[in-house]
Amino acid sequence: MQKIRLGIVGVGKIVRDQHLPSIAGNGDFELVATASRHGTVDGIPAYQTIEAMLEAHPELDAVSLCMPPQFRYLAAHAALEAGKHVFLEKPPGATISEVEDLKRMAAAKGVSLFASWHSRYAAAVEQAKQFLKASPVRSMKVTWKEDVRHWHPGQAWIWEPGGQGVFDPGINALSILTHITPAPLHLTSAELEFPENRAAPIAATLAFGSANGLEVAAEFDWRQTGKQSWDIEADTEAGHMRLADGGAKLFIDGTLTFEAPDREYPALYARFAEIIKAGVSDADIAPLIQVADAFMLGRRKIVDAFHD
Amino acid sequence: MQKIRLGIVGVGKIVRDQHLPSIAGNGDFELVATASRHGTVDGIPAYQTIEAMLEAHPELDAVSLCMPPQFRYLAAHAALEAGKHVFLEKPPGATISEVEDLKRMAAAKGVSLFASWHSRYAAAVEQAKQFLKASPVRSMKVTWKEDVRHWHPGQAWIWEPGGQGVFDPGINALSILTHITPAPLHLTSAELEFPENRAAPIAATLAFGSANGLEVAAEFDWRQTGKQSWDIEADTEAGHMRLADGGAKLFIDGTLTFEAPDREYPALYARFAEIIKAGVSDADIAPLIQVADAFMLGRRKIVDAFHD
Repeated sequence: MQKIRLGIVGVGKIVRDQHLPSIAGNGDFELVATASRHGTVDGIPAYQTIEAMLEAHPELDAVSLCMPPQFRYLAAHAALEAGKHVFLEKPPGATISEVEDLKRMAAAKGVSLFASWHSRYAAAVEQAKQFLKASPVRSMKVTWKEDVRHWHPGQAWIWEPGGQGVFDPGINALSILTHITPAPLHLTSAELEFPENRAAPIAATLAFGSANGLEVAAEFDWRQTGKQSWDIEADTEAGHMRLADGGAKLFIDGTLTFEAPDREYPALYARFAEIIKAGVSDADIAPLIQVADAFMLGRRKIVDAFHD
Repeated sequence: MQKIRLGIVGVGKIVRDQHLPSIAGNGDFELVATASRHGTVDGIPAYQTIEAMLEAHPELDAVSLCMPPQFRYLAAHAALEAGKHVFLEKPPGATISEVEDLKRMAAAKGVSLFASWHSRYAAAVEQAKQFLKASPVRSMKVTWKEDVRHWHPGQAWIWEPGGQGVFDPGINALSILTHITPAPLHLTSAELEFPENRAAPIAATLAFGSANGLEVAAEFDWRQTGKQSWDIEADTEAGHMRLADGGAKLFIDGTLTFEAPDREYPALYARFAEIIKAGVSDADIAPLIQVADAFMLGRRKIVDAFHD
């Protein structure tokens, strides 16, 4: 089978760290061109805009959209209009309605739309899901605490409306949570802490319920120095589960029961190739809905200014 | 056919003004019981909670849920669990995920769920929709400006998280807008004005786009004294359309071309009976998604304190 000729839009840190090695390691893809205001990839034709790239490379089969979410819709629209398959970095958009629009457009064009959630492909996530399926769950706790200065130095867009602040990492937790819990969750209360000089929250406290009575508490905090935490814990009749390090490791009653090397982005590209070959889309927006619900239902608290 | 035996939960102003006369005027329904902390209906058995009502009246076929949205999910869950058809006042819930949950539950139970949007049944809405369908639309403008002191005196819940502030009337505009525009809209920017002493916005400025280039501007303001405005205007190739008075009147190029007496709530109950008989649900959440998007993408501006 011919390779899938791919263009990348928005060449930044995540593309260099994750997308390029994953594409290079996947025999189904061939990187043909990039579009980015500043970034380029050695040896690959580079354009300033997606429109210029699409015009110069009509042979492209697919594009990966890796710019900040506030700019994703227009690029996705252009790519779908041109009949390309589309890989959306997370979050898939700045609003729910624009992603719904892209889903309709992809269906009408007969191409594949992939709303990617890399954390769902973390090593131990499927094991955690199987564990929770087998053992009645009493309650769960999500702790996602990291140092924004370390992980997002000087990223201005992330503090702007649509950048979602602490929900940028938090949506990774929500993408795992909505995937592994045995019942659909709905937000029951939320508090969002906004630095007085920023348009996006630096911390959030969330509570979820489910129709069958499961309760989940979540703490997202970007002010964490020292030990960083990306944990999902569950108290179950079969013991205490801890999915740690962003989904990489599974502990049962304190004992490490599963870990494996990180293959999140390689798995994303394997999945993208799979849905293109199958002629389907994969665009679950449950994590984005949880974020929108948090903004809608959340009580706002103004906290100290944040300076990079 | 036997009448649909109905219970009402949350007996307040909207129930007395609209639901009771509409139910009395609809031969398909028989009001059997109410549940409310304070309100009662003369001659109808009254209970304090939906659980007590459901237990005392197993013959109930359906319930109308008219309490503030923050309390709607638990009541809807109890009613669906008991196998009743459910009429949700607008907005259908405090979060998107809880309404999605109710949709799944209603489908699993084989009962009808109705997410009601009364403004979609305003007299001239269908005429406006037909007009917009026939004539290419250049741009649209929504002006929803009213005096909160007059329309919502002392309603504390409306200022709490989940009460949605100015989106309580604004979602009526959005329910019409999402129904009559020829293409799906997505929010492109928003500014929300929060009084410094309140948890919900008192005003909002919104901008929407669509895949085919339609632009819509919306202004919601609760500080409007004097003339009140509930207008949706469109510039089209066939002239200027103004859907006025919350959907009651249609003006084309300044001339009143359609009006009819208000039948919003009678039409809602006619629709509820229809979907029950047909064994289907009617639960479009597009207006609620637009509100969630506005909270997620909206820039927050703190404005003067509001006192009732």
